[in-house]
Amino acid sequence: MLPGPSPMPYRYARRVQFAETDQAGIVHFSWYFRYMEEAEHAMWREAGLSIAPPGEAGFPRVAAALDFHAPLRFEDVFDVHVRIEAIARRTIRYAHTITRDGVTIATGTMTAVAVRKDPDMRAVDIPGDIARRFAVWRPEEA
Amino acid sequence: MLPGPSPMPYRYARRVQFAETDQAGIVHFSWYFRYMEEAEHAMWREAGLSIAPPGEAGFPRVAAALDFHAPLRFEDVFDVHVRIEAIARRTIRYAHTITRDGVTIATGTMTAVAVRKDPDMRAVDIPGDIARRFAVWRPEEA
Amino acid sequence: MLPGPSPMPYRYARRVQFAETDQAGIVHFSWYFRYMEEAEHAMWREAGLSIAPPGEAGFPRVAAALDFHAPLRFEDVFDVHVRIEAIARRTIRYAHTITRDGVTIATGTMTAVAVRKDPDMRAVDIPGDIARRFAVWRPEEA
Amino acid sequence: MLPGPSPMPYRYARRVQFAETDQAGIVHFSWYFRYMEEAEHAMWREAGLSIAPPGEAGFPRVAAALDFHAPLRFEDVFDVHVRIEAIARRTIRYAHTITRDGVTIATGTMTAVAVRKDPDMRAVDIPGDIARRFAVWRPEEA
Repeated sequence: MLPGPSPMPYRYARRVQFAETDQAGIVHFSWYFRYMEEAEHAMWREAGLSIAPPGEAGFPRVAAALDFHAPLRFEDVFDVHVRIEAIARRTIRYAHTITRDGVTIATGTMTAVAVRKDPDMRAVDIPGDIARRFAVWRPEEA
Repeated sequence: MLPGPSPMPYRYARRVQFAETDQAGIVHFSWYFRYMEEAEHAMWREAGLSIAPPGEAGFPRVAAALDFHAPLRFEDVFDVHVRIEAIARRTIRYAHTITRDGVTIATGTMTAVAVRKDPDMRAVDIPGDIARRFAVWRPEEA
Repeated sequence: MLPGPSPMPYRYARRVQFAETDQAGIVHFSWYFRYMEEAEHAMWREAGLSIAPPGEAGFPRVAAALDFHAPLRFEDVFDVHVRIEAIARRTIRYAHTITRDGVTIATGTMTAVAVRKDPDMRAVDIPGDIARRFAVWRPEEA
Repeated sequence: MLPGPSPMPYRYARRVQFAETDQAGIVHFSWYFRYMEEAEHAMWREAGLSIAPPGEAGFPRVAAALDFHAPLRFEDVFDVHVRIEAIARRTIRYAHTITRDGVTIATGTMTAVAVRKDPDMRAVDIPGDIARRFAVWRPEEA
């Protein structure tokens, strides 16, 4: 049996790869958005789900934002902490904090919307078996 | 002689490449942040500057945010309109609008900070010969 | 009417973008393979084709190889020269030369195979309306 | 104390991320070259080394080649097996095999050259403390 939905933040550990750096000697800012998404998908797997099941809804992003506080460099090991800030009928909003050795590297949010997997990509309700696996994180419960 | 600073939005034209799509059949959202940066750098070149001159300040991003309104697909030709929203002593904030055939694809902002090019990356004033090339865009002047 | 198939190499011009550099201060080697593919697709467009038409064959790569002779750096403008070395019933082999200001940067080859666009990706004959648009480049004809 | 140089292939385990897929529903071929490099760098770390130590030689690639036998898809877990095929005074050649559940996905080679870390990037001898950590893999020793 799958575990019940967890209201806790999910922690995703990762190491910086060489191709992710740029000539300034730090990770290119576009990569942090991929790190956010990798953490989201790992959280879905932890919940017994895949964000790309065949024949179901897709989840394109409708908003993404990051503030960058400190750089990451080649071979740094860091954590992406992701929690669910809000679940509406058709959207999920995540909040992310990226840290390395206790230092905050970046903080941000990302919102995905459920859509039909056809060229029109019309918004649909989040399938119940997915919505049931997730719960909004509330600090007072932690 | 270089042209004076332009308060007008700069338009950068681009075509979607295959490697920029994902298995949902649309451009992966992380690419839009690269499109924003490509447009910024093209605007700098238009102003007679390079964002990466040897022996000068670097310009890492401290914030980036996008709202996605419609997808881009393989071989789509689109425009990135970039304008300067604010120039402070050490930071430049850009506003971007991505359009395809008059349809708004995405809107967002990006803030870069001038730093010394050493491992500490301490914030410094934007060099005068750079600051003088740019001007904030004000709609009433357009 | 479309022009007839051209046996001449196709030239694709490109500028190096910041996100394509790595911390060694040069373009990351994986990007050259994307440059090869961008040039291939531009050559297809020049021939009145898209490599990704709806409802037709797909063209995954079965081999790719590059030798790197000199680096590319941020904002370099370079050319990818692509020509067809061989067309068989199901495969196309391209040869690429990347140059900057007459200096050879990289040389390589890439082979694509026609497949059915389903999960099995079974090899199929190259559709006639595609094969007819291309011709092998033979230096003696140039 | 560090372990002695290992003549055995090094195995690097990895999961396919969403941003690595393209609209054909499979991993874009350019990513396999990054997987090869990630495995190489993990092998260096296993040997107690970093491929990017401050103040030392750099190791740009001079050749890379891959044959693709079967696709990888989103969330696939796969292995990159990397072994050293040859070490010369200034170059290291690796051979890679990518597998998923015992199926061969791709096979290839990559050659890196030691260079001075300055704009000229002149080839130099591989530093002794690096060369001593590696040994050519010979099947008969396995």
